[in-house]
Amino acid sequence: MIHAAYGRIQPVVRQTPLLSSPFLDEIAGRKLLVKPECLQHTGSFKFRGAYAALSGMDAAKRARGVIAYSSGNHAQGVALAAKMHGTTATIIMPADAPEMKIANTKALGADVVLYNRANEDRDEIGARLSAERGLTLVKPFDDPLVIAGQASVGLEIAAQCEVAEAEVLVPCGGGGLTSGMALALSEARPAWRVHPVEPEEFDDAARALISGKREENTRRDGSVCDAIITPSVGEITFPILRKHCAAGIVVREDEAMQAMALAFSRLKIVIEPGGAVALAAALFHGDKLRGDTVIAVASGGNVDAEMFARAVVG
Amino acid sequence: MIHAAYGRIQPVVRQTPLLSSPFLDEIAGRKLLVKPECLQHTGSFKFRGAYAALSGMDAAKRARGVIAYSSGNHAQGVALAAKMHGTTATIIMPADAPEMKIANTKALGADVVLYNRANEDRDEIGARLSAERGLTLVKPFDDPLVIAGQASVGLEIAAQCEVAEAEVLVPCGGGGLTSGMALALSEARPAWRVHPVEPEEFDDAARALISGKREENTRRDGSVCDAIITPSVGEITFPILRKHCAAGIVVREDEAMQAMALAFSRLKIVIEPGGAVALAAALFHGDKLRGDTVIAVASGGNVDAEMFARAVVG
Repeated sequence: MIHAAYGRIQPVVRQTPLLSSPFLDEIAGRKLLVKPECLQHTGSFKFRGAYAALSGMDAAKRARGVIAYSSGNHAQGVALAAKMHGTTATIIMPADAPEMKIANTKALGADVVLYNRANEDRDEIGARLSAERGLTLVKPFDDPLVIAGQASVGLEIAAQCEVAEAEVLVPCGGGGLTSGMALALSEARPAWRVHPVEPEEFDDAARALISGKREENTRRDGSVCDAIITPSVGEITFPILRKHCAAGIVVREDEAMQAMALAFSRLKIVIEPGGAVALAAALFHGDKLRGDTVIAVASGGNVDAEMFARAVVG
Repeated sequence: MIHAAYGRIQPVVRQTPLLSSPFLDEIAGRKLLVKPECLQHTGSFKFRGAYAALSGMDAAKRARGVIAYSSGNHAQGVALAAKMHGTTATIIMPADAPEMKIANTKALGADVVLYNRANEDRDEIGARLSAERGLTLVKPFDDPLVIAGQASVGLEIAAQCEVAEAEVLVPCGGGGLTSGMALALSEARPAWRVHPVEPEEFDDAARALISGKREENTRRDGSVCDAIITPSVGEITFPILRKHCAAGIVVREDEAMQAMALAFSRLKIVIEPGGAVALAAALFHGDKLRGDTVIAVASGGNVDAEMFARAVVG
């Protein structure tokens, strides 16, 4: 399924390079490779899963239109994938999502419906609208086609890096990217270890990997890492994480902001706070890693200018 | 010579992707592809020419050490290339170069000598130091090996983009990158047109292409586009530019800053002002171009955080 999805998305997806800097290696205390999915179409890896889902969907269903709920990155991925397939996208977004993400989603032709993250349930709104309008829901992570699409990040890294042993760090919200990559790498690079990375206070995946069952985050908003804030990992993603992932790593928000500043000065890429947590773990939590090579996914770059300036100027 | 240089640098150089965004296409009024050499090792294309020069140099000469003068990007390229060849680099830099460039050059192991851009002649200092210390000068642009190395940007673009007709826009200081790319593309893509792009008041290449002889800039400092400020194009680069380039394009500094902001929000890359002039020309001077495709080189990303924040927040 992963290889079939890659076959469908490869002609349209951007193969992102692996970046590095001797200055970052020194901070990390080992070779540090960064997979900049911020350079992907729509500014995050989410386009991969969205395109995999749309291209793998029954054509008649797809023609009636799709619907998605997202804090912004999945929204843009689905909007562009829908446009490329000549169909319509309805996107349910939290009213407090970064302005840029809402504006971009609209500009990509989607019909945007806003909701309140604190007291409304996006799943419920999504289910209702899809029933009313005959739309097919493209879930942000808990969908085998989406997971198979995100797995392509793992396939690309395996093709780009031939070291025998490596630690792979992945920003983790619902677990779509982490589970997809872990699945792909379990086959392509069985000796590598994949760690989900989360911000403090939103560390349900790390806790779930310890307790052995899905855990909930008590808060659902109020983090600069908006891209990876979800109530918990998915029903489908969790068993994959449990089977194929090493321990979760938790970073502070200020470490994510510092990682953004270092990615700016050393790699010349723009990462958003949620997309920077894996790089932050590689740079500042090396004691939790082993081996000579760490690979961090920079999962997205959709950040407002003010927030970015705050990170880089300090 | 171009293909031989590419053979030497290909194993170590980063092959940068071609980026695009539907939002930028709309502003440009045509398909706009960006070659982000800011993602190159040391943050600019200069590493290509420096490595080509060092790897093509007589081994005994190289072992005695090299010297270079540079506002910062060539400095870092030579420093890293010297380090990779196990030799020493002495770098003459203007005292008003961006702090980051000076600090990085030192951190890459080079011996940095500062000079005053307004009243000292860097060529003279370079010649004196190289005589005193037995060092071999690696010129920033007026050297066939360096030009052959920069040409690899053109070879890569030709391999990445197969359109029959395109306008290629290149930030131009001394003309090393522009002449190298024009040479490579004259063979690989003879129907494409290569334009040097410069900031206002430092437009000697555009004037030289009209007058048919090298022209001088009256000012030598005071531009945010420090990376591409030179007294004039080179003795070796000019005849190549004259033979293979279309008309020069001149942009305002505020247009370069606006291009930086759009590269931040739409491509998630960090470009410095001098590296953004070609993108600015593609976005805001479309009336000087023809055809459906424009390719802009983003030549470097070594910019201080304050300057970058000024560009993106406005």
